Amino acid sequence: MPAYKAPLHDIRFLMNEVLDYPAHYQKLSNGENADTDTVNMILEGAADFCENVISPLNQSGDEEGCHFKDGEVTTPKGFKEAYDQFVQGGWQGLSYPEEFGGQGLPMSLNLIKSEMMGTANWSFTMYPGLSMGCINTILQFGTEQQKNLYLPPLIAGTWSGTMCLTEPQCGTDLGQVKSKAEPNEDGTYSISGTKIFISAGEHDLTENIIHIVLARLPDAPAGTRGISLFIVPKFVANADGSIAERNPVTCGSIEHKMGIRASATAVLNFDNAKGYLIGEKNKGLHAMFTFMNTARIGTAVQGIAHAELSFQGALPYAKERMSMRALSGKKEPEKVADSIIHHADVRRMLLTQKSIAEGGRAMIYHAAQIADKMNDALLLGDTASFEKHDDHLGFYTPILKGFLTEMGYEAANHGMQVFGGHGYIKEWGMEQIVRDSRISTLYEGTTGVQALDLMGRKVLLTSKGKVIRDYTAEILKFCGQHARNKYMRRFAWDLTKLCAQWNALTVRIMLTARKDRDVVSSASVDFLMFSGYVMMAYFWAQQAAVASAKLASGDGAEVPEFYKAKIKTADFYFERLLPRTQGHAEAMVNPSKTMTSLAAEHFSFDY
Amino acid sequence: MPAYKAPLHDIRFLMNEVLDYPAHYQKLSNGENADTDTVNMILEGAADFCENVISPLNQSGDEEGCHFKDGEVTTPKGFKEAYDQFVQGGWQGLSYPEEFGGQGLPMSLNLIKSEMMGTANWSFTMYPGLSMGCINTILQFGTEQQKNLYLPPLIAGTWSGTMCLTEPQCGTDLGQVKSKAEPNEDGTYSISGTKIFISAGEHDLTENIIHIVLARLPDAPAGTRGISLFIVPKFVANADGSIAERNPVTCGSIEHKMGIRASATAVLNFDNAKGYLIGEKNKGLHAMFTFMNTARIGTAVQGIAHAELSFQGALPYAKERMSMRALSGKKEPEKVADSIIHHADVRRMLLTQKSIAEGGRAMIYHAAQIADKMNDALLLGDTASFEKHDDHLGFYTPILKGFLTEMGYEAANHGMQVFGGHGYIKEWGMEQIVRDSRISTLYEGTTGVQALDLMGRKVLLTSKGKVIRDYTAEILKFCGQHARNKYMRRFAWDLTKLCAQWNALTVRIMLTARKDRDVVSSASVDFLMFSGYVMMAYFWAQQAAVASAKLASGDGAEVPEFYKAKIKTADFYFERLLPRTQGHAEAMVNPSKTMTSLAAEHFSFDY
Repeated sequence: MPAYKAPLHDIRFLMNEVLDYPAHYQKLSNGENADTDTVNMILEGAADFCENVISPLNQSGDEEGCHFKDGEVTTPKGFKEAYDQFVQGGWQGLSYPEEFGGQGLPMSLNLIKSEMMGTANWSFTMYPGLSMGCINTILQFGTEQQKNLYLPPLIAGTWSGTMCLTEPQCGTDLGQVKSKAEPNEDGTYSISGTKIFISAGEHDLTENIIHIVLARLPDAPAGTRGISLFIVPKFVANADGSIAERNPVTCGSIEHKMGIRASATAVLNFDNAKGYLIGEKNKGLHAMFTFMNTARIGTAVQGIAHAELSFQGALPYAKERMSMRALSGKKEPEKVADSIIHHADVRRMLLTQKSIAEGGRAMIYHAAQIADKMNDALLLGDTASFEKHDDHLGFYTPILKGFLTEMGYEAANHGMQVFGGHGYIKEWGMEQIVRDSRISTLYEGTTGVQALDLMGRKVLLTSKGKVIRDYTAEILKFCGQHARNKYMRRFAWDLTKLCAQWNALTVRIMLTARKDRDVVSSASVDFLMFSGYVMMAYFWAQQAAVASAKLASGDGAEVPEFYKAKIKTADFYFERLLPRTQGHAEAMVNPSKTMTSLAAEHFSFDY
Repeated sequence: MPAYKAPLHDIRFLMNEVLDYPAHYQKLSNGENADTDTVNMILEGAADFCENVISPLNQSGDEEGCHFKDGEVTTPKGFKEAYDQFVQGGWQGLSYPEEFGGQGLPMSLNLIKSEMMGTANWSFTMYPGLSMGCINTILQFGTEQQKNLYLPPLIAGTWSGTMCLTEPQCGTDLGQVKSKAEPNEDGTYSISGTKIFISAGEHDLTENIIHIVLARLPDAPAGTRGISLFIVPKFVANADGSIAERNPVTCGSIEHKMGIRASATAVLNFDNAKGYLIGEKNKGLHAMFTFMNTARIGTAVQGIAHAELSFQGALPYAKERMSMRALSGKKEPEKVADSIIHHADVRRMLLTQKSIAEGGRAMIYHAAQIADKMNDALLLGDTASFEKHDDHLGFYTPILKGFLTEMGYEAANHGMQVFGGHGYIKEWGMEQIVRDSRISTLYEGTTGVQALDLMGRKVLLTSKGKVIRDYTAEILKFCGQHARNKYMRRFAWDLTKLCAQWNALTVRIMLTARKDRDVVSSASVDFLMFSGYVMMAYFWAQQAAVASAKLASGDGAEVPEFYKAKIKTADFYFERLLPRTQGHAEAMVNPSKTMTSLAAEHFSFDY
């Protein structure tokens, strides 16, 4: 398993040189907290914690997994101590309000911290990660009393939280939720039902676990309009925050998973557990949607996390392992063979990983700035501004979650492939990255669900293609600014063509969908991937523009190899990965009938 | 874990309706053995053994894995009993000569049997599978004495065999092999060295294990021209076949792998083990190449095996699991939601799996006919004919191995994706298929190695593009035959365009390579994938031609849904997967310099 090294140089390049975070922070109401020194302290502190505390637990955590006995879950060796350090470092409260014990920093710093943590040890990061959904829900929809009771320990990290949505019969289709909430005379509710796939649903890291549970009131309408939200603590809390009785919400088992084995995925049985309504009755699903974008961006991070970690494993191996000679002649004549980094095809895999990790990082850091603005609007109580930025982020969300997790899995597989047969052996740790990465296209909405959200909701239903027109206009503006630069011209030209094609494809599918509704589904994943490739190209072009300017001006003389590598990677991306758009474009324009017209019962492997 | 159902209908469709196996068998010297009744008996017997004996051990074998203690390996529960049944059924000897106890049937029947076995339980199938390499080597290069001593028990299956090539410092680059062979006075050799990744290198299924070992004689030239082959039995055998002393070849450990966990992958230590030279001194690697094509086709089978098994798991789940409504309106209004097979995007995944499993099966069954001819030439001692067919198969080999294993892994992942979050949970068995499948692009030559073999050796070096010209001529002939058929016209047209493009790409890379040698590597995987997609398209067109003719003539009235599904799958393949060729085409024509020009030491994640 590669020891994680936080890519601080790249992180600072994106924050300071490409996306101008300092200016961005100045525009936020809490931006003054994020001065250069504080940001540096946080980046370096997070890097230290990730490299030295949780990265060393990544492989051992996978080997050991979580233990389940009599309803109790024990996390792997070292997790509890590492979590205590996490709490002591105040890492959970980074971007939460100071009034509840947080540090009041912009949300983007939290996301960057989560990226580092997730890369070092995704399983570990799931525990505090799930708390965030719970904290956000209480912050936005809780009563003053609920906020004062639950937020301080959640933000300190001494308590943790979960989101209990999925049930055995439904995941995506939450209208099928069956869990019940019976009102009690004291204003509380008795919650009954079974929830599955509850990450961090039971564990030994915190004193208490606060579940946010989707359930139905007795008189609730059927379907998605009859779902309410409840706070169900593992231990009921007294008004002073002290812990009272154990609530009958019990862990029935934990799942045996392909990967992220150190993250406990619980089956939770609610047996008349005491719950507290949060938010409006029957509006629970609507409340969930409020944080869907940020939650999904948090999962998109997994794509770049596993691309980065796998790259960090594969690159040194490619420099060490010797096999055959480069086709253009011996590169290391003194050795028995050339190291495999001298084979162009091995570079193809390494550069694909680098493209995805660094291109995806730029996409996410840009989205994080929008999340900052959303959060700022929330703090200021500016609903209109919140919704504006949420809509804006809503365009990026399915692309980042869908595209980056698919690409992250591809990158993880390339890293394993660089190792040849050794990649398949556990001790190297490369196969763990593949297994850990594999869940990212499944949870928090599968790739298919992201694609339908993009194509159906964001592009067609809500905006009739306007989101694509607006976004391509932004790209074209960038192209116009760089068209006269000799080096940048080819990027500008490729992007210009792709923007035209993106709009044309949108219109064509929109027209087809008038008569062929299923085309929205049949075209959706190809459309998502096309969109992702173009968006990533735009972010590579931005990085190339900065890098080439730095080299030209001499500003980049200190680490020219960093900028040169950026430029080569951008070139590689445009030459080798971006052409995949054409396969997706050609596939998506076909009508849906080939896919839908075969009778389901004739679809068989056993005639 | 899906219970395997042998797709006999599809197997017979390919053998009898598409590829005319009966006529093919009549042309073989041993073809009379393969009459209709015998073939049916074998197909049904193999299906029964696979479905009822080894398929039920697939998941339990993965869970339990192999046990290693004090140099001994115990296979998972049930494996020994199943292997005994395999031996009793005479399954190992299906295609080996009757004079050594085999049944003398064409090699293709063995491959089809292996496909069924491998789909039911790939780990189990590795044990007898590795014996084949050993049997082939002894059959071709052994002395009469060696044949008479080793072949009967190997062909009966009471002994098994291995191929010991890889060492810690080298896999692909066998010129680095260090194992030594010191001649003894009695004509035997003392073999010393360490071999790794030896599948079936140690286990409890057979009385003896016969290792074929690559090692160097004391006076051997350096590199690949100094490697000889040795027979090194686990137990030395007396001349009468009885077992004598234990040879000092010991299992140091077995690997902990991502998948195929029931297959024992051994580290073998040879400590002056007694070995017998087989074949000519220093010509060992050349001898290995004799069976490389058939061995690699055997691994290509893994692509279709895991595509098929994953499809068999995903299809029933897609028919049962209910979520949301189809975009074109309720399909099962009486239910709480539509089953997910009514979502076009789910069908995209299922049809991708079906395309790969059935399209790949056709490719392999065609290659198996060439293998039959090779084997026939071998039996008749017709070296020229053997080499002609071996060359012919040599064109298909890297495409089948490289492309089909990559596609099989994709298909396995789609099957898991259809299950949503449940796909990530071990009990469903879908993630095991992904893990088992993952090794297929690594062993028996990685995808990169296959790509270089195709592009470098087969297309450029040996034939200067002629193999592509010849093969496209064959496809164009087919197109000409079907151009007037209204249904077939679109396939003929797409294939015609792609054949022209395939030749143009070949010429372009050939010209580029004169000055830019590295382009052969940088373009190779894209060229391999392009070639695979076109070849699979040709085999789908062939299947569509038969299916549409059957439906038109009324001959297919008995199971019209089978033929209709064939046609829809062919349509799907041409509309949705074949367009990926364009991304590969655009990527491969770029010069290699973007990939190769960055100094290795500047390639970093830590500046």
